Amino acid sequence: MDKTLTQSLAEFIIGLDARDVPAQGIEHARTAIIDSVGCTLAGLNEPAAKLTADWGGREGAAPRATVLGRGYMSSPGIAALINGTASHALDYDDVSPPMIGHPSAPLVPALLAAGEAAHASGLKVLAAYVVGLDVSARIGRLMNPAHYAHGWHATSTLGALAAAAGASRLLGLNEEQIRHALGIAASGAAGIRKNFGSMVKPLHAGQAARCGIEAAFLARSGFDADPYILDGQHGFLDVFRGQAANAPDASSIRFSADQPLEIIESGVGIKQYACCGCVHTALDVVRALMQKHGFTGQEVEEVNCGVNALAPQVLIHHNAQTGLQGKFSMEYSVAVTLLDGHAGPRQFEDSRVLLPDVQELQKRIHMHTDPALPINHGVFPSKVTVTLKNGAQWSGEAHKAIGMHPSLPLSDQDIDTKFLGCATYALDAQTAEEALKSLRGLEHMPDLSTVMPLLAGRSAVQ
Amino acid sequence: MDKTLTQSLAEFIIGLDARDVPAQGIEHARTAIIDSVGCTLAGLNEPAAKLTADWGGREGAAPRATVLGRGYMSSPGIAALINGTASHALDYDDVSPPMIGHPSAPLVPALLAAGEAAHASGLKVLAAYVVGLDVSARIGRLMNPAHYAHGWHATSTLGALAAAAGASRLLGLNEEQIRHALGIAASGAAGIRKNFGSMVKPLHAGQAARCGIEAAFLARSGFDADPYILDGQHGFLDVFRGQAANAPDASSIRFSADQPLEIIESGVGIKQYACCGCVHTALDVVRALMQKHGFTGQEVEEVNCGVNALAPQVLIHHNAQTGLQGKFSMEYSVAVTLLDGHAGPRQFEDSRVLLPDVQELQKRIHMHTDPALPINHGVFPSKVTVTLKNGAQWSGEAHKAIGMHPSLPLSDQDIDTKFLGCATYALDAQTAEEALKSLRGLEHMPDLSTVMPLLAGRSAVQ
Repeated sequence: MDKTLTQSLAEFIIGLDARDVPAQGIEHARTAIIDSVGCTLAGLNEPAAKLTADWGGREGAAPRATVLGRGYMSSPGIAALINGTASHALDYDDVSPPMIGHPSAPLVPALLAAGEAAHASGLKVLAAYVVGLDVSARIGRLMNPAHYAHGWHATSTLGALAAAAGASRLLGLNEEQIRHALGIAASGAAGIRKNFGSMVKPLHAGQAARCGIEAAFLARSGFDADPYILDGQHGFLDVFRGQAANAPDASSIRFSADQPLEIIESGVGIKQYACCGCVHTALDVVRALMQKHGFTGQEVEEVNCGVNALAPQVLIHHNAQTGLQGKFSMEYSVAVTLLDGHAGPRQFEDSRVLLPDVQELQKRIHMHTDPALPINHGVFPSKVTVTLKNGAQWSGEAHKAIGMHPSLPLSDQDIDTKFLGCATYALDAQTAEEALKSLRGLEHMPDLSTVMPLLAGRSAVQ
Repeated sequence: MDKTLTQSLAEFIIGLDARDVPAQGIEHARTAIIDSVGCTLAGLNEPAAKLTADWGGREGAAPRATVLGRGYMSSPGIAALINGTASHALDYDDVSPPMIGHPSAPLVPALLAAGEAAHASGLKVLAAYVVGLDVSARIGRLMNPAHYAHGWHATSTLGALAAAAGASRLLGLNEEQIRHALGIAASGAAGIRKNFGSMVKPLHAGQAARCGIEAAFLARSGFDADPYILDGQHGFLDVFRGQAANAPDASSIRFSADQPLEIIESGVGIKQYACCGCVHTALDVVRALMQKHGFTGQEVEEVNCGVNALAPQVLIHHNAQTGLQGKFSMEYSVAVTLLDGHAGPRQFEDSRVLLPDVQELQKRIHMHTDPALPINHGVFPSKVTVTLKNGAQWSGEAHKAIGMHPSLPLSDQDIDTKFLGCATYALDAQTAEEALKSLRGLEHMPDLSTVMPLLAGRSAVQ
């Protein structure tokens, strides 16, 4: 008899050897972990993250896992919940197109907590990331777009399975226990899209991280579940995807160490800018034009941005008065990039948004639909024309955003710059540099616990 | 504009006054709470409950809520998770037909933890139960049978909303906060039927209890969610029920303090026997015949049980060798009732199942399908004929099981007997009696915390 999907998944989770992961895969995983840690540190002042951490602090759990940037430890489950929520709070974290979601926000917090509890090596954590990303993306291929279209936040639902898979490896579960962990996690998978735009969206990432690591701990202690959770009637696929038209047959996808890994195939898209993905190509063009022609925001008279017909449905704010509005405003995002040279989290703080320079400039940035720009899934091309006060005019066009596609990776320097910008929300500059250096050597770290105190943050220093 | 379903629900949750609940409703709620506490105490030796409690103990959270029968306290969320899992571990807990689920297993643990934390009066806890039951059953009417048929365990999904509703009242949330609590809980609602038959089934009740109380705590602290979570695209109804054929229009159901409460309308079905509901009418008949004609199990030659065509699909074990098989065996359940006069949890322990008397007698109990017995949703009628060794023959028939329908309530004495039988799994006899006496006076208890030490159990005494 052919193996069921659950069997092939469990065998893949336990079977993949870190030595079989191509160097490029380990590199991508390391980038994703660095980026996710950075986003977590930058996100921890957001209301959703603060309130979750306040709640977690009141839980008063025994200190076994680091709560990033807050200087205290909690239980692995609670730390995963708090860190996961913070990691997605700015929507600045990475994306996986086949998952239609954010793969690291639920996965990395579970790996950090499990890895810290198990004193796992950095290489083991990286391999667990590779496996978890494969779960998110490959099950995503099987279930999307029906799963997402039905109203599920895949970051949370698929993220719970991925977190369980990664944590199971780090906690040393055997194959039978891993199948139970997947079963437990499948019954904790939750999160509906109606909550988008509220604090619950980032909470989804945290709850998936907690679900995954708790499932692994319970399964390790002997807690059982249905051992074929992905398959058959009332199984995960049946309930969360159903018999959607054009859905791939579950038998068409098998997990196997022999096939190309998703970390290579679909990769992880890293956001260079702390705003909606629809804006990214325009900002790439603006920055390239500024660099090439050497002008500043003060010299700009107006900018015209052509976008495809989908983008205006998302970019609904044309005169941003808050950071959150700014993230979904082409006009604001372009204006602040012209003035500051960048669009990181500090550019989307309310205090920056309200300053006169950017308030004035955003009125002279215009967005229009350009029918010539194609509509493809997950890609938002832009044509940008900048007119200077002195009459000079420069144009550029980009179809894929740098960092968001495996074919256009960010440079290590870009990654480092983003990390340091993010980390200094929670760490002093020196600690941020040390943390980065440490994470850059993750592959050779004998015990993950060595880097965690650096990430614990300023309160620990006090 | 008409109120949305979420608005009418939030207004109902905050608006219902304990003084507006008919005395019969308060009485039903008290019975349900007593029964749920008993089931929790009896269930705490089950593997799912033990493993969850072991995990919860390792969390080491600050002691603010009583873990029943284990002599320690934990955080409200963790206590709710542990107690909820124990309460459903034996499947001996109450049922709600419109919910198609077990209403108290997620609700009561959330109310106990919230009530203890808030030092709520017993009357407030009872009123919160009435509200929570209304949420389970009334939203159940709106969503079932499509919701359950799709593969959801309604005990968990609807239970999370009910737990959030009840906990929100006890924690003193205002209407806006209650809408956020419902939104948070809706994104934590989870649990798929594929896990039936594994330890995850009772865990579903625990996770719903935790989800509800954590949602209430987060919302009270300012955490927001979509304020119309039941309504519209990608809302709770849309995602968890969809546009099922013949589904009632959401606008057909409104929550209102003016309409009959579900605690009166559909009530709460209490199980007298610790086995599958399909067996209950037969055991009622057997016990009535024994009482009327004064025979014992030793005198019985054979028994024939007629059932409707559905029952044999559930009662699949005809020669039980374990307690779990015995719960789904007409032959075993009847045999042990004839011998012991009852079918409580002790009758379904493996050690009882394996004794020669019941092993021998179950071979002489026979089940057959009787086409004359009707098939109605949730009702399992039986015709029973007992033949004694002396040739005497007695017959009886029952269409509804005592306790399982509001029209056939258990007597207070039956409730007390069940509670004491359950509670002595965890408490000494004197403490069990005291706890019962205390819970019988719940309506007049000024602070729920006064009864909780009694329920904490034997370890506390050591």
